[in-house]
Amino acid sequence: MNFAAVAHMPDQRYCYCTEPGRFIVRLQTGRGDLSGVILHYQDKYIPVKFMDTRKKVSMNIVARDAWHDYYEAEISIDVVCLRYFFELCDTNGCVCYYSSFRFLNEPPTDIDRMYDLPQNLREVQRFQTPEWAKNKVVYQIFPSRFATTKDIPEKLWYKAPIKADTDLQGNLRGIIEHLDHIRELGVDIVYMTPIFHSKSTHKYDTIDYYAIDPTFGTTEDLIELVEQAHGMGMRVVLDGVFNHTAPEFFAFSDLENNWEHSHYRGWYYCDGKPKRPLIRFKKPNYKCFSYHGGMPKLNMDNPETGDYFIEVARYWMKTAHIDGWRLDVGDEVSHQYWRRFRKALKQEFPDALIVGEVWHYAADFLQGDTWDSVMNYPFLNAVVDFVANGEITATDFVNELGFLRGNLNTACYPLLWNLIGSHDTPRALHRCNGDKRKLRLMAAMQLLLPGMPFLYYGDEFGMTGGADPDCRRGMLWDKNRADMELFSFYRRLIALRKQYPELTEQPPMKVETDDEKGIVIMEFENFVLIFHGGETPCQINGYIGCKDLIGNCTFNGEIASYQSLLIQK
Amino acid sequence: MNFAAVAHMPDQRYCYCTEPGRFIVRLQTGRGDLSGVILHYQDKYIPVKFMDTRKKVSMNIVARDAWHDYYEAEISIDVVCLRYFFELCDTNGCVCYYSSFRFLNEPPTDIDRMYDLPQNLREVQRFQTPEWAKNKVVYQIFPSRFATTKDIPEKLWYKAPIKADTDLQGNLRGIIEHLDHIRELGVDIVYMTPIFHSKSTHKYDTIDYYAIDPTFGTTEDLIELVEQAHGMGMRVVLDGVFNHTAPEFFAFSDLENNWEHSHYRGWYYCDGKPKRPLIRFKKPNYKCFSYHGGMPKLNMDNPETGDYFIEVARYWMKTAHIDGWRLDVGDEVSHQYWRRFRKALKQEFPDALIVGEVWHYAADFLQGDTWDSVMNYPFLNAVVDFVANGEITATDFVNELGFLRGNLNTACYPLLWNLIGSHDTPRALHRCNGDKRKLRLMAAMQLLLPGMPFLYYGDEFGMTGGADPDCRRGMLWDKNRADMELFSFYRRLIALRKQYPELTEQPPMKVETDDEKGIVIMEFENFVLIFHGGETPCQINGYIGCKDLIGNCTFNGEIASYQSLLIQK
Repeated sequence: MNFAAVAHMPDQRYCYCTEPGRFIVRLQTGRGDLSGVILHYQDKYIPVKFMDTRKKVSMNIVARDAWHDYYEAEISIDVVCLRYFFELCDTNGCVCYYSSFRFLNEPPTDIDRMYDLPQNLREVQRFQTPEWAKNKVVYQIFPSRFATTKDIPEKLWYKAPIKADTDLQGNLRGIIEHLDHIRELGVDIVYMTPIFHSKSTHKYDTIDYYAIDPTFGTTEDLIELVEQAHGMGMRVVLDGVFNHTAPEFFAFSDLENNWEHSHYRGWYYCDGKPKRPLIRFKKPNYKCFSYHGGMPKLNMDNPETGDYFIEVARYWMKTAHIDGWRLDVGDEVSHQYWRRFRKALKQEFPDALIVGEVWHYAADFLQGDTWDSVMNYPFLNAVVDFVANGEITATDFVNELGFLRGNLNTACYPLLWNLIGSHDTPRALHRCNGDKRKLRLMAAMQLLLPGMPFLYYGDEFGMTGGADPDCRRGMLWDKNRADMELFSFYRRLIALRKQYPELTEQPPMKVETDDEKGIVIMEFENFVLIFHGGETPCQINGYIGCKDLIGNCTFNGEIASYQSLLIQK
Repeated sequence: MNFAAVAHMPDQRYCYCTEPGRFIVRLQTGRGDLSGVILHYQDKYIPVKFMDTRKKVSMNIVARDAWHDYYEAEISIDVVCLRYFFELCDTNGCVCYYSSFRFLNEPPTDIDRMYDLPQNLREVQRFQTPEWAKNKVVYQIFPSRFATTKDIPEKLWYKAPIKADTDLQGNLRGIIEHLDHIRELGVDIVYMTPIFHSKSTHKYDTIDYYAIDPTFGTTEDLIELVEQAHGMGMRVVLDGVFNHTAPEFFAFSDLENNWEHSHYRGWYYCDGKPKRPLIRFKKPNYKCFSYHGGMPKLNMDNPETGDYFIEVARYWMKTAHIDGWRLDVGDEVSHQYWRRFRKALKQEFPDALIVGEVWHYAADFLQGDTWDSVMNYPFLNAVVDFVANGEITATDFVNELGFLRGNLNTACYPLLWNLIGSHDTPRALHRCNGDKRKLRLMAAMQLLLPGMPFLYYGDEFGMTGGADPDCRRGMLWDKNRADMELFSFYRRLIALRKQYPELTEQPPMKVETDDEKGIVIMEFENFVLIFHGGETPCQINGYIGCKDLIGNCTFNGEIASYQSLLIQK
């Protein structure tokens, strides 16, 4: 037995409440190392001699990564405190017990040498996420380039936005007029990058959090946009840039003008009267986002500052009835602030969605007390490396997804924003060197797997573009240039996702891979989902004559380069 | 390489701030699996082509448990955000890289595929513990049985306390008069189990948190006790029973009397007007500690209730100038409450010590935001199982301590309350079947290893007693019956601990064990600490002619049954 691989911690990954009285207990083991795990549990405070409360339950493997299996059991209890331990059986039939971080040859009888689950404690810290968001489809809009009602020369529209004075042409009215496109696709949630007053094209340096950028429109436009989206059954999420501001933001401005007498010293991290730097990557005398003097970093742990931005978040929830916030550079703002933020927001708007920006697996922000979910860059890495770069195998791909399922609380897993590109990365099609077969496969992975598929505007029309700002070109509204077949493909996949919730709501019964061919086969009760990450067309055993719901045709046993299949059994 | 054993998480165990600009990065690997680990790191935001910020540092093994090595590096940085990865070299010289949860054959160059350390974030959540408490010696008093100024028949004094009406004889005045004993021993901190108004002998069911129990004395007595202790250079810690109250506590009383109209419904968890149960282990219609109807559980997440007890904690800090709180049943009260409690208390009393009661390794309470430390029951288990029960080997014993060192933030490690017995367990001597050689060895382990040795009153006089309440007999003040030699032994060990901080402040350079003989050898720069957990006297190679500071004699190469040696090199 690989004892060193066994892990269990009293945290929101390994032992947590799903609903009052219901708990998940999870154990990490070495991959393929065991033939079974049994969870033993009993009431902590009732002696066995008084009443025998002992129970046991078999645990199931719910996820695997390259090196581990993740066993889970869900139990119902009604106690003050539970004590538990694990019975591990290896593939040779040898049994041992794992209890309070010790391996034992005999089951422990001393209650104080077992793991501990204080029921009330775990219930209080239950990770609760908005039901409405689970497995739903998000559509990201970069407002200065999505749609406009202004009269803009085509050339200007389609180029990458660099200078705000000439390149700010999109507006909210344009978005409103194109909501039907988004809805037609089957999207559930519209997410816009920042829309508040700022001088840049990207608007991540906010001057006024209470004003819609004048080139984008007005508060009334936003209200109408949300109203119309709601009317179409869609939700709206805004981008909260609360890590930093523009230097023109009133508090920083006051520091620049009235340093000695400014009320706002505690709002930023300044070593003295702020001096904007002239040299790149040279730290100014105040903290910034990156080393950009134009984005001074807020001290969100200063209560007044923190409150100000909670109020901003509340204001737009109340005023425009938006449905949630995506938090920019969320991982550089403290957990204690986000706890405060969550508490305040959820108290008033229990259904608000809170998604943080972080570029890697970040269990610390997914403990149930800060965010509901994150931008799922590990998903992007897995998809891009398997399909676009051909750098990892089918098995690696499956393992990377398994790592997330095994290492995250199941309350947030269906809310992960599964992206294959964003305004911060090269476009998916660019990564595929323009190969639309690959793009389709990546889209199928996004759209048929659990989580929240996060579509970047224009991917559905076959838009391309390299790293920022090239990935932010104007939306391809010209139907002669837009790939309408691709659009139909996206639409079909989203329709299938909605029609068959089994695909996203239940883990597959079996996952198989063929690294030679680059094939992943996920078997569900009524479906088989197949991804082919290889160039060479090949045969798939079985299912011949069944219907492939993606191609909407009968499966003949062959799978083409970079094809995805959804076989109806 | 045992890939499944490698672990690194963005939390307070694996990646944390020790002081502004200083960080510890830790990696878990399979035990003995690697020949070395190198930490590579660089600025996240400055491109290498602009300025090469890349650095690397060798990591050292700082702890080992049965299955793992824990590698650590401490680095100084001044950046916005750091990116890092690990270079792992196995014993065959094979190298691989571990970056953002992936193993790679080549070092990663994409900054977004590395681990992440946002400097400000980690600094804000820095785990800060009171310097004054590190490695200091605590002495636990059970006030109804420690000392008295009342005229009590000897028979009554020495028996286990069961009935409050006849068995409550100790008082604060008695403690004051015996502070010299505690100080003589060399103790730094006096901790008393609850002293507030209650009907029981143990007082864990409090009626009035603002009144000293009348059988114990008055507020003035407590003030004098603390004043005198401070005058002797000792600190005082009280027991905060904030998980539950007595039913006679005003708020619960009000519920019993005025259910419909009571203001205090939110203070407890009642399904209806509380009815005290008549049957043992039968849940009453309100939540309790265990199933004791006499200890109704408080809802500390009700803001008013939480505030009340923060005020209690503040009141005694202010009024009696106590130095901290031990939190009873701390692990059944929510993290969110303890966060509030810590913040409020530390804001006013930054030096306050906060120690929670939990009976197992509990990383969730040692993240820097709730408690400073815990009752270290895993230490008790290791010592008792090795020495008293002979159930684990010398190697197991060392591994169990290594597990704690490897899995805890170094801010709390020197504050762990290392106990070998308490008012809640059989006495150490009882566990040793009265064998004082074993007791001495256990005491030496407590008193010469890092952490806060937590002495239970009377152990130093050779007191014994089985499980509660037998372990709570009256303190053996009769010098004819007290083991004064044992007292001298304790005194000597504490003196050595203080004289040679090297023993507790630096990890040993080398640790060796001999499981056949039951020997642990810890080598320091100037000392060798040896524990012999075996019955059979045996030889130790080396150090003959050196001085053994415990025995205060020249070492002749022999170590007796259950002997401990502190060799001066």
